[in-house]
Amino acid sequence: MSRPRFASFTTGKRQGYGLIVGDGVIDLSARFGARYPTLGEVVKANAFNELVEAVADHQPDFPVSDIAYEIPIPAPEKIICVGVNFPDRNEEYKDGQAAPSNPSLFIRFPRSFTGHDRPLIRPRESHQLDYEGEIVIVIGKGGRRIPETEALSHIAALTLSNEGTLRDWVRHAKFNVTQGKNFDASGSIGPWLVPFTDESQIADIKLETRVNGEVRQSDRTSRMIFSFRKIINYISTFTTLVPGDVIVCGTPTGAGARFDPPIWLKPGDVVEVEADGIGTLRNTIADEVI
Amino acid sequence: MSRPRFASFTTGKRQGYGLIVGDGVIDLSARFGARYPTLGEVVKANAFNELVEAVADHQPDFPVSDIAYEIPIPAPEKIICVGVNFPDRNEEYKDGQAAPSNPSLFIRFPRSFTGHDRPLIRPRESHQLDYEGEIVIVIGKGGRRIPETEALSHIAALTLSNEGTLRDWVRHAKFNVTQGKNFDASGSIGPWLVPFTDESQIADIKLETRVNGEVRQSDRTSRMIFSFRKIINYISTFTTLVPGDVIVCGTPTGAGARFDPPIWLKPGDVVEVEADGIGTLRNTIADEVI
Repeated sequence: MSRPRFASFTTGKRQGYGLIVGDGVIDLSARFGARYPTLGEVVKANAFNELVEAVADHQPDFPVSDIAYEIPIPAPEKIICVGVNFPDRNEEYKDGQAAPSNPSLFIRFPRSFTGHDRPLIRPRESHQLDYEGEIVIVIGKGGRRIPETEALSHIAALTLSNEGTLRDWVRHAKFNVTQGKNFDASGSIGPWLVPFTDESQIADIKLETRVNGEVRQSDRTSRMIFSFRKIINYISTFTTLVPGDVIVCGTPTGAGARFDPPIWLKPGDVVEVEADGIGTLRNTIADEVI
Repeated sequence: MSRPRFASFTTGKRQGYGLIVGDGVIDLSARFGARYPTLGEVVKANAFNELVEAVADHQPDFPVSDIAYEIPIPAPEKIICVGVNFPDRNEEYKDGQAAPSNPSLFIRFPRSFTGHDRPLIRPRESHQLDYEGEIVIVIGKGGRRIPETEALSHIAALTLSNEGTLRDWVRHAKFNVTQGKNFDASGSIGPWLVPFTDESQIADIKLETRVNGEVRQSDRTSRMIFSFRKIINYISTFTTLVPGDVIVCGTPTGAGARFDPPIWLKPGDVVEVEADGIGTLRNTIADEVI
């Protein structure tokens, strides 16, 4: 049996969330919005099962075509991204440095991401928009200095990211990748949250990124340099993780920047990020309308 | 006449905000909390003047000694920090690189900061806690691609930061300073917001950091490599600024890391960051209680 899929969305001007069932949406926010205003509160309350059971015999309220997907957790306290976390990615930097002993981390603001099936925006300042397909974990139980042995019990749900990047703006200043990683709507998260209950959901799943149907990135989570356990342990060393925090866990080799010459995303391109058991996150590229 | 000073605080378990008048606090949240739950909403509504006028003939409700200061904006959408923004700071890196042409930016989470008069926490993982005194601007009017000529009209208020840093954790990984800048309560913001109405409040003010009374950093904002106008213009190129966003504008030369051997902060040390017309942000260093 397939796992439930919790999506955040807008319909007209209303924001909501619901279960995606086939081509339909069971509107959970209409039923539970007073208690859980967003999926963030559902995660905090560990209420996935409660909601699934409450609507077990319901038919969809409206078709998926009626909604615009939003990023699953609308305003997480933190979105932390892991850089250089698959074999060969380190070599792509061609700086002669050995593999890192600790994960490189950077932060993205929620507004740098858009939802599933919405355009990724190529800004007028740069045409070097590149894709990075990644697995995303959402924290359910907070904590500080979480041991690796307990780390997986702190994950509430899984989703995907196209951690879209403006390559020239990543190196725009002396240090840090902040600006190249934070152009408005340059990346995406979604399509939905899949509750996490079993290590087999992430231990060795395939993660693939396609551009216009062509496979560009393909690897398996078992090959990650820093495991999900290690990432949670390391990040919680310095900051207290709280429910709803989002961790974007790193991309396989094969981004457009590694081609010679590089192949940047252009308007009309369709990028799909797919992972076993989670789904397919799809976005089309569009130029910004000014 | 001195400018009003808006502080966020807790008294017992209640969170609030008010005007600091001498040794007393005029409790604004008790009077306006329904309309403006936090100083974030006061900034968004551009309501500084309204609140000052409403309590113009009031006496303080309680002494400052009854409150614990919190960071002025409790949950800003963004806290963006500018690195390497005063002369000689670039040379401190001793990497032979010329001065940067764009500001280096990094992001801190609100929980990496504590309020005025509260301990800065030295974590058990590192004893390389260092100070960085900085001017902070709070955005009042949002926008994207804000021209330099209009940038100052987007500032609502000023405050200060000790942008405390764990030096070894700044270089813990291959790229980015994220982890060394985000240990819980390793920095501070405050003591309060001073409404911004006139360029003279920031054009050429002295910024000084003292440790146990000894001056360690002292410079003037007129010497900043990237001006306040440029910072707002540059950041708003990639991300939409919104009311309440916090920008920490860079520190003068003289951090503890530049001494030979380096001088790290230790428990009991008192760090003061002072700037003309804004105030003095004071914190004592304490080891984490585990």
